[in-house]
Parts: sequence; structure tokens; C-alpha cells
Amino acid sequence: MHDLKHSVLDANLELVRHGLVIHTWGNASGIDRDGSVVWIKPSGVPYHTMTKEDMVPVDMDGNVCGGHLKPSSDTPTHLVLYKAFPVIGGVVHTHSPYATAWAQAGMDIPCLGTTHADCFRGPVPCTADLTEEQLNGEFEKETGMAIVERFRNLDPMHTPGVLVKHHGPFTWGRTPQEAAYHASVLEEIAKIAFFTLQINPSATGNELLERIHFFRKHGPNARYGQ
Amino acid sequence: MHDLKHSVLDANLELVRHGLVIHTWGNASGIDRDGSVVWIKPSGVPYHTMTKEDMVPVDMDGNVCGGHLKPSSDTPTHLVLYKAFPVIGGVVHTHSPYATAWAQAGMDIPCLGTTHADCFRGPVPCTADLTEEQLNGEFEKETGMAIVERFRNLDPMHTPGVLVKHHGPFTWGRTPQEAAYHASVLEEIAKIAFFTLQINPSATGNELLERIHFFRKHGPNARYGQ
Amino acid sequence: MHDLKHSVLDANLELVRHGLVIHTWGNASGIDRDGSVVWIKPSGVPYHTMTKEDMVPVDMDGNVCGGHLKPSSDTPTHLVLYKAFPVIGGVVHTHSPYATAWAQAGMDIPCLGTTHADCFRGPVPCTADLTEEQLNGEFEKETGMAIVERFRNLDPMHTPGVLVKHHGPFTWGRTPQEAAYHASVLEEIAKIAFFTLQINPSATGNELLERIHFFRKHGPNARYGQ
Amino acid sequence: MHDLKHSVLDANLELVRHGLVIHTWGNASGIDRDGSVVWIKPSGVPYHTMTKEDMVPVDMDGNVCGGHLKPSSDTPTHLVLYKAFPVIGGVVHTHSPYATAWAQAGMDIPCLGTTHADCFRGPVPCTADLTEEQLNGEFEKETGMAIVERFRNLDPMHTPGVLVKHHGPFTWGRTPQEAAYHASVLEEIAKIAFFTLQINPSATGNELLERIHFFRKHGPNARYGQ
Repeated sequence: MHDLKHSVLDANLELVRHGLVIHTWGNASGIDRDGSVVWIKPSGVPYHTMTKEDMVPVDMDGNVCGGHLKPSSDTPTHLVLYKAFPVIGGVVHTHSPYATAWAQAGMDIPCLGTTHADCFRGPVPCTADLTEEQLNGEFEKETGMAIVERFRNLDPMHTPGVLVKHHGPFTWGRTPQEAAYHASVLEEIAKIAFFTLQINPSATGNELLERIHFFRKHGPNARYGQ
Repeated sequence: MHDLKHSVLDANLELVRHGLVIHTWGNASGIDRDGSVVWIKPSGVPYHTMTKEDMVPVDMDGNVCGGHLKPSSDTPTHLVLYKAFPVIGGVVHTHSPYATAWAQAGMDIPCLGTTHADCFRGPVPCTADLTEEQLNGEFEKETGMAIVERFRNLDPMHTPGVLVKHHGPFTWGRTPQEAAYHASVLEEIAKIAFFTLQINPSATGNELLERIHFFRKHGPNARYGQ
Repeated sequence: MHDLKHSVLDANLELVRHGLVIHTWGNASGIDRDGSVVWIKPSGVPYHTMTKEDMVPVDMDGNVCGGHLKPSSDTPTHLVLYKAFPVIGGVVHTHSPYATAWAQAGMDIPCLGTTHADCFRGPVPCTADLTEEQLNGEFEKETGMAIVERFRNLDPMHTPGVLVKHHGPFTWGRTPQEAAYHASVLEEIAKIAFFTLQINPSATGNELLERIHFFRKHGPNARYGQ
Repeated sequence: MHDLKHSVLDANLELVRHGLVIHTWGNASGIDRDGSVVWIKPSGVPYHTMTKEDMVPVDMDGNVCGGHLKPSSDTPTHLVLYKAFPVIGGVVHTHSPYATAWAQAGMDIPCLGTTHADCFRGPVPCTADLTEEQLNGEFEKETGMAIVERFRNLDPMHTPGVLVKHHGPFTWGRTPQEAAYHASVLEEIAKIAFFTLQINPSATGNELLERIHFFRKHGPNARYGQ
């Protein structure tokens, strides 16, 4: 538990180090699957004064079960993702500008090169619009459900992130650190894809490249790292 | 008075910390409504050597009533805003590049997502062109009056900023710090809206999203922060 | 002389501080009009190890008259400008990205707002193409002459900079520091003008705004600074 | 050998200092032509903890011949380049955003001004698409061969870099440091060319400018530096 708290703090600070968040925006969480507890950033607290003791533990129903602060308002979205994707151990949400622009544009980010394909297999998907009923309901929970709906035919470990339409990116990974890494990669590929299509509006990727590159760095035949 | 001086200095330095100003550009002020005194940045003084003793007090007619420096040349605009919007306690003006580009484009920034909707209810409005008579008159005062005219049917606390056409952004808030925060948010949403419309020129927001998100973080049912 | 050397070094370092140069690119100079000596950055020397003793004095014919290094290869351009514009005391050349993009585009930067009008009266002009003969001749001297030709009907103190087509910006001022300040302003307005026209391709300024704003901050009725 | 190891480390860190790489992305290598050994960055190791002892020596067949880590997965591409271009002493690969965008766009970067022409004679070429057979084969080696094929009629010292389609830039030079310098110049000219064509889609360079500028800074009549 102690280590997870520290890991969640560190993943939150990683968002600052990579320029993905300003002010109190964004949040990272991590799950203790044995204890069924999610540790998450507190709501509206500045990053530069945050300590691991400020991280908030919540149970799988969203009840705060310790700490001294209120959890991120996005907590219900994180919980839906942890329940739907049993393989993940960390979730990150940011408003990083390029990924958010694609989310506001309501468009999937096409896979245009190896920078993208090394981390995301195929396009980064964008969710559907929420209905008026969903917006008027529990917005954060509905957001999580819209993500899960969008992933009906996708493997969350092959596509470790999503764009929530009119909102911004969520990413995940086996650990909070990996979720933060994916948030940073997503912002970078969102930026490069934007530039690419400005330079050449008819640029496209191809399925072959997508598949081959993804498996260069993932799966049993991966050849990267030590 | 002592605290307000410090608060005004701090809001000015916040503009530097968030990369919203270069050289001596931009200015922040705060009002002491009891004493009817506005403290504002001096004109043309570099930020990195500025102390709180350099802040300039002016009365509601723009007369300097203390300090040892001349006030910002934009002071008359600040005064018009304090008079028209009794609820505000701080005003900020910058030439931050993305917000200034929208001002030069002469266009409202549409509300395209939650990053915008969390802080501004509906579009960030742009003022009308000044007439030749207004330009030849007291330019800074006329600028304030053009803002007030643009807000005839807008609530300044729901829309805490404006684009002055061919000029740049003004923002405000309950305190100088909140005005500086809004200046930073405005630059961020100006940037993301620019990227969004480059990616998808037909991207739009919708009234529903605007309303629901704004009230998620404002008013009696707000659920954000501690 | 001692002070001018320091001033030229400082103006060169100001280019680094404002992010206008990388590697050994760019250069700043200053003139001692009494002694008819121009002090300029040495060619190809890194900024971070540069001292004022590295600055190179050249006479008005371009002969090195002291120091221990070779002067910037752009020296002949600086000399032409000092001869043609007797009022200036400093010259700066950079390859800052936005101003260079406008130079490569071969287009004047239109005056779209007060950020521009406060410093440059009317558009920032772009020179004509050099002819094959000029390119094959003394390129740097021809560059200076193309600038002077472009300023046939312009006041160099109202328009303290230029875009050399297919090359990049030159700016000047009463001192090396002012020339560096103008280089920084030029990059900022080049950036904002680029964004503006991407947002609204039909954005324009107007002559009235150009004139009134320029004289707000210049001439006998200027009201800015202490 | 000792010096080359240090030089390769330094070239790798230069990529960080110039903002060309994030995380563990990118790599620099250097060759000892006498010993026929290439020293290269290890795979997947963070830059900020890297020491020169982490550099990996490989022979010309790609066999690791020392050190304690696995070499960059891009090593086979580096080896092909060292074999094909006997004059080069260092190779760099990055995913720097603007150069990568041109690579994803599948377009040569046109020579639009002196910033480009000072370093690259003529356009920065983009390779052809790899075939399915090549993609399924030894991808990194095939990448090197596609570069060599693209340079059939180009002088690698006049064009010290390339865009690998759907992938990103490779650059080279007489030393690892020069290869890193060219990586930084390539990113800068990729950025400025992008801005230029957004400002003026019909901007072009011309052969004359390309030739004259390149030889201003290269060859027997070069006039730059000390």
C-alpha cells in the first residue's frame, strides 16, 4: 500500500515533468487489486506541494476509505476502467493540448508511422457523443462507460488510451507509471499526426506497418529494451 | 492594503511563470473596494526586478495616490471594468500568443470541450471594432467601454474574460490571482481551439455540454476541489 | 569602447535568453560612431563560452582592427545598414523560426493588432529576390543593399526590422539591446500573425490602428514607461 | 576507443539538450574505422542515468563485442549506413516531431532558404515505402538499404540526413557530434519549412540559392567559423 501510494504520487508528478498538465488539471491513479482499493490524486490540489500522504484511497464503489482529502472528480471514470479492464494497474487523465484537440475534433488519431505503431496498435479511438440523458446523469461514470463501449472490439493492452469526445485523453497501463508514459506518448503522436496532416492532408498509414511495428516492441518476439 | 499590494505583485509574476508575458508586456491589478483604490503594475518595468513597493495605487478617477512610479498605460481599461463589474477583485491583460491571435482574427473562441466549459460558459467573446472617433479619443478607456458593451447580456462571472479586437485578452476574477488563473486558462483553450479547428474545421461544441460542464465546477452543486 | 564591447556581448546573449538562436546561429553588433568601429560577434563561436574579449572590431570597410577572432560572416550586411541608417546603433540577425518562415514565404508581415503596431508602424517588409548576379557577387553586401533598397520610402526608426527573402530577419535600434529587443518582438508578432491567418485567413489590420498605436508608444505624445 | 565512447555518450546527450528526444527514444553511434567497431546507445535505457560505460560496441556484422547491455534495436540501420558511406563517422536517429511529420507525410523537405541551404544541398530526401517483403524481413536492415537506395545519386556529405517514410529522420556526419548537430538542424528546417508552406503554400526555393549558399559554408571557398 505504501509503495502504491508513492507510485501514484510519482505518476502524477510525471505528468508535470512531461508538460502534460498545468495548474491542478489531470490525475493519475493506481489500483491494489488484492485489497480492491484505488489510490488517486486529490481534487484541486496543486502538484508542487502534493505529498504521497495526500493521495486518496477509494473502494470499488467510490467510497473514500482513508486519507484526509476528497478524491479527483474524475474518480468514477477511473473505477469503471479498472472494473472493465482487469489487466490494467494504473489510469491517467490529462488535458494535454494536442490530444485534447483531437478529442475536441471528435476524430480517431490515425496511425501514420512507427512512433505511433510502437505503442498503439491502429488508430487511437475517440468515443461517441454522450446523450443528453448521459450528460445529465453521472457524467464521470457515463464517461467511463462510453470508453468501455468504444473498446467492445479492442484490446486495451494493444490500445492503451482513448480520446473522450469533447473532453480529452485517458490512458492506462500495467502500472501508474506506464499509464503516465502512455499519456506522454499519446500527446507526442497527437502532435506529430496533426503536423503530418497539415503538411500532407492525404497522408495515411497502412495496416501492415501498424501490425508489424506494434509486435516489434510487444509480445513474445519483441526486440527492445534490456 | 499591504496584502493587496503583495497579491497584485504575485499575480503579475504568475503571468511570467505561466509564459503569458515577455519583456514588460501585460499587467495585473487588484482593487480595494473599501478604500476605492486600485493597485496596478507600473508601466514598462521589467518583471524580474519588480517588488511590491513598485505597485502603483490609483483612485477610481485614475489619479495616482501613492507609490513612486507611473501606472500601466492600460489603467483606464482596468478602471472601467472595476466600475462596470462590481463583483470582480482583479483584472489581467496579456498579449499571450494564441488568445491574441483570436483577438486579431476578430472571432469569438467557440466552446469545443470541457477544458473550456469548466471555466467559461459559452464562447469567449470578441469585442467590436473601435470607431475612428473612439481610437482618436481616450483609447484605453474606450477599450474598457467596448468590453462592457460586449457584456451587455453576459454575466462576467460566467465569462471571466474577453478578446479585445486587434488587441488581446483581458481576464478578471474575484482576486488578482483568479484573474491570472483565467488568463492562463484562456491561453490554453485558445491554443486547443486553434488546433481543433485545424484538425477538423467543422468541429463544434453544443449548448448542452457548455451548460452542464460549467455548473459541474461552479454554483451550489459544484463538485471540484477540497 | 569597453562598454560597447560588453553591450554587444549582452545583446548576443539576449538572443539566447529569448530563444531566438540555436548553436552559433545569429549575431548582434554595435557601432562606435565617433571611432567608426563596429563590434560584432565572432564567426561560429558558441554563445555559452563567449566573453566580451571575443567580440571583433571592424572598421567601416570591414577590416578587422583588433581582437583575436574572425568576425561574423554577416558583417558586410551590418556595415551597409550602419552606413545607410545613421540613426541606428545596433544590428541583430537571427534565424528565429516564425520570422524566418515569413522570409521564406516571401511575404510582408501585415499589421494585425496592437502587439505589432506598438513597435512596427505598418507591415514588416520583405526584400525582393536577389538576382543571379547579386547572388554570385558579394552575397552579404548585396543583402544589405537589398534591405536599403526596400527602405527607400520607409523610416528605419518606424520600421526597425526587415525580412530578407529566403533568408531571415534583420532588426536594428538605437543600441544593440534595442536591436535585440526588436528581434524578439518581430519573432512574437510573426508567430501571432501566422496563428491569426490560420484562424481567419481574411483577417486584416487597418491603417488607422497602425498609425494611432504606433504613436501611442513613440514620439512626443508617447505614454508608456517611466 | 575511450574517447569514442565518450563522444558517443555526448552525442546522445546532445539530443536531449536540443529537445530532439523524450524517454528512451532515439540513438547516436560512432565508428572506429580502424578497429571496425561501432559504439552505440543501449536499447531502452533512460538518458539521464546513462554513462559512457553503458555504450555498446558491436562489430560490422552486428555482434556485440563488449559492454554489459544490449545495443539499440536500430543498430542494423546504423551498420548499413557506415558500410555504404565510408566518409561518415557518426549516425543519429530521432523521432523529433517536425522531421517525423515530414517523414510521415512521405515528402522531401524543399530547400526554402539559407537556414536549410547552409547545411543541406537541395531537398532533404524521403525514402520510398518498404514492401511487405521488406517489412516482414529484417526491418532495421531494410531501412538502411532503403536509405542507401535513395542516395544512389546523392552525396551523403552534401545531404547529411534523410527521412525514412512512416518512421523518422536519420542524420550523419564526420563525427557523432556532427551527426547530432545535423539532427538538430534538420528538426529546425523541418519546422520552418512547415510554417513557410502554411503561410504561403506556393513558396519555393531555387536551385541557384541552394548551390550558392551550400558552398558559402562548405568546400575550399567556405567562409564561416574560425
